Amino acid sequence: MNPSSCDYIIHAAWLITQDHERRVIENAGVAVSNGRILDVGVWDDINREYEGDELLPGRELLVMPGLVNAHTHAPMTLFRGLADDLPLMEWLQTHVFPVEQKHTPESVYFGALLACAEMTRFGVTTFCDMHFMAADVWKAVDDSGLRALVGEAIFGFPNPSYANFEEACIAVEHLIFKHHGGSSRIAPILAPHSVYTTTPDMLTTTYQYAEDNNLKWMIHLAETQAETAECVQKHGKRPLAYIDSLGCLGPRTVIAHGVDLEPDELDRIAKAGAGVVHCPKSNMKLASGVAPAPAMRARGVRTALGTDGAASNNTLGLFTEMRYAALLHKAHTRDATVMDAQSVLDIATCEGARVLGLEKGTGAITPGSPADIIALDLTRPNLRPCYNPVSHVVYAAEGGEVCMTMVAGEVLYKDGAFTRIDYPALLDRIRTLGGWVREINRGSA
Amino acid sequence: MNPSSCDYIIHAAWLITQDHERRVIENAGVAVSNGRILDVGVWDDINREYEGDELLPGRELLVMPGLVNAHTHAPMTLFRGLADDLPLMEWLQTHVFPVEQKHTPESVYFGALLACAEMTRFGVTTFCDMHFMAADVWKAVDDSGLRALVGEAIFGFPNPSYANFEEACIAVEHLIFKHHGGSSRIAPILAPHSVYTTTPDMLTTTYQYAEDNNLKWMIHLAETQAETAECVQKHGKRPLAYIDSLGCLGPRTVIAHGVDLEPDELDRIAKAGAGVVHCPKSNMKLASGVAPAPAMRARGVRTALGTDGAASNNTLGLFTEMRYAALLHKAHTRDATVMDAQSVLDIATCEGARVLGLEKGTGAITPGSPADIIALDLTRPNLRPCYNPVSHVVYAAEGGEVCMTMVAGEVLYKDGAFTRIDYPALLDRIRTLGGWVREINRGSA
Ligand SMILES: [Zn+2]
Ligand SMILES: [Zn+2]
Repeated sequence: MNPSSCDYIIHAAWLITQDHERRVIENAGVAVSNGRILDVGVWDDINREYEGDELLPGRELLVMPGLVNAHTHAPMTLFRGLADDLPLMEWLQTHVFPVEQKHTPESVYFGALLACAEMTRFGVTTFCDMHFMAADVWKAVDDSGLRALVGEAIFGFPNPSYANFEEACIAVEHLIFKHHGGSSRIAPILAPHSVYTTTPDMLTTTYQYAEDNNLKWMIHLAETQAETAECVQKHGKRPLAYIDSLGCLGPRTVIAHGVDLEPDELDRIAKAGAGVVHCPKSNMKLASGVAPAPAMRARGVRTALGTDGAASNNTLGLFTEMRYAALLHKAHTRDATVMDAQSVLDIATCEGARVLGLEKGTGAITPGSPADIIALDLTRPNLRPCYNPVSHVVYAAEGGEVCMTMVAGEVLYKDGAFTRIDYPALLDRIRTLGGWVREINRGSA
Repeated sequence: MNPSSCDYIIHAAWLITQDHERRVIENAGVAVSNGRILDVGVWDDINREYEGDELLPGRELLVMPGLVNAHTHAPMTLFRGLADDLPLMEWLQTHVFPVEQKHTPESVYFGALLACAEMTRFGVTTFCDMHFMAADVWKAVDDSGLRALVGEAIFGFPNPSYANFEEACIAVEHLIFKHHGGSSRIAPILAPHSVYTTTPDMLTTTYQYAEDNNLKWMIHLAETQAETAECVQKHGKRPLAYIDSLGCLGPRTVIAHGVDLEPDELDRIAKAGAGVVHCPKSNMKLASGVAPAPAMRARGVRTALGTDGAASNNTLGLFTEMRYAALLHKAHTRDATVMDAQSVLDIATCEGARVLGLEKGTGAITPGSPADIIALDLTRPNLRPCYNPVSHVVYAAEGGEVCMTMVAGEVLYKDGAFTRIDYPALLDRIRTLGGWVREINRGSA
């Protein structure tokens, strides 16, 4: 029998499929065609049955699904390292807000494009973003080739994107319009910032948009105990009960953080079919508390993993983030068996994709699923020897080992080179924008 | 005036000196001669005053002192990822001990050499190791060009290195003998494993060796509450009081872990001039507890940073380890200001060097200090923009950005290539040894 033709074949020393059986295959092959996984199997079979461009031939690769970073604020890369080691409110008011208020479409676009470059470089193939001027974030994602949900952040106060909620709704409708006409890699998400920065009308109106357009609705919720206390004082309810009372807790709801959640609240989230994005590193850096991630999973809450913005993390890669998810809860619960490597990999891939409502098969390498694939160079000293690639991905990889990132069957990064982003030109723009941020920060600090 | 000649000059877009004033210099230069830092200043001055081989010309570099990994078990790289997510005792008894007992001089040597390759690759220039068959670790260090303290791990039970304490003492004396005749980059350290694996005689005898030969004495101490309870039951004292009662708490003493320490014990350590090596990631992974690192520093305890072995970490780089030291305590104390970036960088460089008793100036880039220097490629997306390189080193770098590692003025790694280690040959040996470990583990698990 003659081999069938396909776009790419990849030879994996180790393949982590993240399929239903969580198969890990040594000496495996993957065939890719028309943006999708065509076949998966042992290398000899794939190599015999398919004819296609072999990606990175002769290399010792760990091949796995691209990672899903379920909560980011991409343009905040411009503020990376501008201020650290500060209490949340001082950090926000003295350093973040003054510069954020000066954002222009250009700074949002290039900040987001830098975020896309970083995520591509570190093996993230899908992310979910919340920022004002989301149309410019959308454009950056579109140019980068990544897959993303992009939301216009809705606040109850003016910002460079809109003067009031009416204008904000126009921005939201604009994204929905783009969605219907544009790339299938990008979809809108409704993104009210939080319960403490919005009115009830903003929450219900955005939720209605989500319902009407079959979209997800993401909100920062229960990030700190202070938020809970303020919500109880103002609305007589804890944050989760408050959004539930407004009809905003359902399968469309995605909660970013979910730190201050009680066991009965976890059950309520699970029952509603809502999801939670766990952001361990950001929570640690801002001393927000420890989200009950092991309890979430035990009680059936759909859980994803996110980095939050680069001003509170300070990176957007998910390899190191996975390790925080694995280690923080071992320390916190004094139990070395919680959040094991496989569970953590799940929330960073297939389970995260499910929380975001992505097409079935996303986050797994299985026939028919979107070809969002990454390859790691297994010859790095920190990945030797290799007994269990799932352990390596969670406990030993740092992200720099990624030598190939593919989204929808398109190679976006290979061996130091971006295929779509003009990286030297991007660095030039970031250099200029960095100087501008430095000036603003000097003036306000 | 004609320029003076030197071995190397390095142009730094940013230079972190870690000198007494903790100067950070933009657009700086460093001149290196005869294994030492000759001069430091702004680039134009250095470039005018010195003539030498320019390292990595035309590149945008962050230059800083090499990192000091103050607690490792280098040969354990061979067990990286062999077993994770297990309670300490099951992990040790079912997976670690059975394979460790099969170690040969060859497996110890190549495991340690892989550790050296990994540390060189990730910017560690000095480490402090504890393992049996330390002479083979020593040989690996010597071959790698790194700086290290190497200790024969002393246990009260037989292992592949010695049958009893008398034989262990011969191994110790052998290291001391090597020291007097050998490389100045390597020195012995006395390394009784712990209070629960040694007799009082082993502690006092090894401490006497340290006194007689002006060496440091390192012990795993107060790693868990279980250790404390066992020590109280057996010796009527908590671990620190126990070693103190034996005369083993002084300026030579270096405590690895120090998790279960009370405030008065910290004062006692500070008063004794002893040091503590903080190992946050290992403690988190094994659910050992949270060491009181902020209190240590507040009470004047000399503090270093270490990874512990690759079987419980699972990496030996210090960039990600620094981030754990910075973030764990913010989460644990609910205070975002503790363990700020500069403090964490200190324990990973100059302060760590001081804990290990290294020559003054080690861990800093200042005229006269040993030329242990690393350079990071600042064009990586996760390091853009750069407002504060100290923040980037602690919060954004993952270690893979290191593009040059120099020890004692000798370049050991540059742009993907090791100068001393035959890396492909090493990978071959590790592949074979990995197969052997897999077989043993299959047989015992
Ligand atoms: Zn956020
Ligand atoms: Zn140890």
